Amino acid sequence: MATQGQVITCKAAVAYEPNKPLVIEDVQVAPPQAGEVRIKILFTALCHTDAYTWSGKDPEGLFPCILGHEAAGIVESVGEGVTEVQPGDHVIPCYQAECRECKFCKSGKTNLCGKVRTATGAGVMMNDRKSRFSINGKPIYHFMGTSTFSQYTVVHDVSVAKIDPQAPLDKVCLLGCGVPTGLGAVWNTAKVEPGAIVAIFGLGTVGLAVAEGAKSAGASRIIGVDIDSKKFDVAKNFGVSEFVNPKDYDKPIQQVLVDLTDGGVDYSFECIGNVSVMRSALECCHKGWGTSVIIGVAASGQEISTRPFQLVTGRVWKGTAFGGFKSRSQVPWLVDKYMKKEIKIDEYITHNLTVGDINKAFDLMHEGGCLRCVLKMNE
Amino acid sequence: MATQGQVITCKAAVAYEPNKPLVIEDVQVAPPQAGEVRIKILFTALCHTDAYTWSGKDPEGLFPCILGHEAAGIVESVGEGVTEVQPGDHVIPCYQAECRECKFCKSGKTNLCGKVRTATGAGVMMNDRKSRFSINGKPIYHFMGTSTFSQYTVVHDVSVAKIDPQAPLDKVCLLGCGVPTGLGAVWNTAKVEPGAIVAIFGLGTVGLAVAEGAKSAGASRIIGVDIDSKKFDVAKNFGVSEFVNPKDYDKPIQQVLVDLTDGGVDYSFECIGNVSVMRSALECCHKGWGTSVIIGVAASGQEISTRPFQLVTGRVWKGTAFGGFKSRSQVPWLVDKYMKKEIKIDEYITHNLTVGDINKAFDLMHEGGCLRCVLKMNE
Repeated sequence: MATQGQVITCKAAVAYEPNKPLVIEDVQVAPPQAGEVRIKILFTALCHTDAYTWSGKDPEGLFPCILGHEAAGIVESVGEGVTEVQPGDHVIPCYQAECRECKFCKSGKTNLCGKVRTATGAGVMMNDRKSRFSINGKPIYHFMGTSTFSQYTVVHDVSVAKIDPQAPLDKVCLLGCGVPTGLGAVWNTAKVEPGAIVAIFGLGTVGLAVAEGAKSAGASRIIGVDIDSKKFDVAKNFGVSEFVNPKDYDKPIQQVLVDLTDGGVDYSFECIGNVSVMRSALECCHKGWGTSVIIGVAASGQEISTRPFQLVTGRVWKGTAFGGFKSRSQVPWLVDKYMKKEIKIDEYITHNLTVGDINKAFDLMHEGGCLRCVLKMNE
Repeated sequence: MATQGQVITCKAAVAYEPNKPLVIEDVQVAPPQAGEVRIKILFTALCHTDAYTWSGKDPEGLFPCILGHEAAGIVESVGEGVTEVQPGDHVIPCYQAECRECKFCKSGKTNLCGKVRTATGAGVMMNDRKSRFSINGKPIYHFMGTSTFSQYTVVHDVSVAKIDPQAPLDKVCLLGCGVPTGLGAVWNTAKVEPGAIVAIFGLGTVGLAVAEGAKSAGASRIIGVDIDSKKFDVAKNFGVSEFVNPKDYDKPIQQVLVDLTDGGVDYSFECIGNVSVMRSALECCHKGWGTSVIIGVAASGQEISTRPFQLVTGRVWKGTAFGGFKSRSQVPWLVDKYMKKEIKIDEYITHNLTVGDINKAFDLMHEGGCLRCVLKMNE
């Protein structure tokens, strides 16, 4: 391509300061160095983790930065030594890398690759510990190793999943975060079996993906818990079979669920990021075997707690990141499942806007009716 | 037998009040009712749970009562409908019942039988919600459904494991609690695999049984953690390969262990009952897969806590009761393993006394050099 090896100037939404509106700027995107891939982002969705860092509550948040981590695009150029993708490939950037070489990747026990973590945590690229983004020479930090709120971004090659070029990028961009997180929490982390009783705390995109995963795993009852009863109608379409609004009860919600289920649920999922709800999710589990999976990201410094008796009597407390999916290996598999209509994506997309409307998109996200808003990044 | 159907008067150590010395009394033991078994206790050991209830810190402790739950004896008589044991059978009373009929027993997921729990928790027998122990007509409560600090006791038939009559009762009495708890935490709850790195917090009987279980499971490193360095010599004989005394470090012990193990241990076991140690045990686990098992019983009202990030990044928090063993089915199997010299018992017995010395035995238990003290109950 004509742009290969050149700095590309393009539009990006820059977060200069916590809580201040994002600014659409002309950003310079440097060419990919060794082991890096420059991607033309075509569609990106917004996720609550973007909003969390933008809010300033993330102690590791760095400003100015380019947020965004749920997207799809086409490889523009690759750096030295990159063999698994080439210009023109359709890809999904993955905030959870998969190098296939580190202790984590080789363990067979986790999807948490450690290879580029220290660099992505510091908002830079591993090769030279610098950013590829700048505005008039002033660097702009990367975010989660993805920074998809830009028309072009640079990511590590271990963070790129090559997907079926037939897949609609305006849909499969959702496979960059929320939908796999929910499905994988059920399939990989909890390993829900047929007949199980499941409780889901929080019916946003992740919670609905948990419901979808639980339904496909054969759960017998899928109980949605949310303080917004309006969410139940939509949730039914994803497999939620019963709805409980904690506001309707005087008792603690864990007791409500224990009573509803003759002793507790087999699996619970916390999809909010509230430590008090995490406790409820554990304590609504059945004695002897109930397993609770934390998916939501809690505010910095907050802690979970419970009586140890809850665990000694057989409950298990776990968590999951990206649903336990190995990103480069399994995101393409999820794309194929979507193409075969085995998993939903379209139903999570409630809004479509363009990148210029990104602040409006964040406003929408905080409204009850919005699941995912997909932004078109390029004309 | 001549005593069948009769009230038996025998010696028992009665706990009248928290923290007051036990009193050896003549106690009347009523005949077993339907579904009950009267056992002549020949040997009983002391366990920290006895001391915990005796101390008055157990909010469910009832006085006056007859403590004791780690013992062996011979069936004296059985009540109506009891088919699985008969007079003369050698048995181990099991505080964790196994009815094979309840939701728990049938689940295939837990050893926590629910059948007699409400009665044993209330210090009575299920049949008539009354005690079989009395002194001059005044009832004395049962404890844990076992009350083995008596020359005769009455237990539910679902709480009796029939064992090889060749097994020495003065040894296999230990299979009533501590040893199976440690072995089972490794084999059933954590499922430690060959090559794993294990940390054990607290090197009493349970901690040493964890070490023995981990060694037989093929663990590559077994790190013992205790604030009493004198325990290391004995611990070596049970498989502990490294010893860490938290008092020797300024850093939090979880950080010491993470540093020692290139990222953390694969499995940790808390064998003390200290909620702050429970946190350390979780947080010394390796990101991505480390599993921590709570075995110790914490004081009433105390809570465990951690940052949810610990779980979201792949650590798992569990607990175990009686090591996950199905009592009636598996205690006989453990006895057989001992007879085949596949598990240790003798090495845990540091003291032998008679029932009249029971208060001295409790004093010994609080000294560092004592693992298990076995009391001879009958001449």
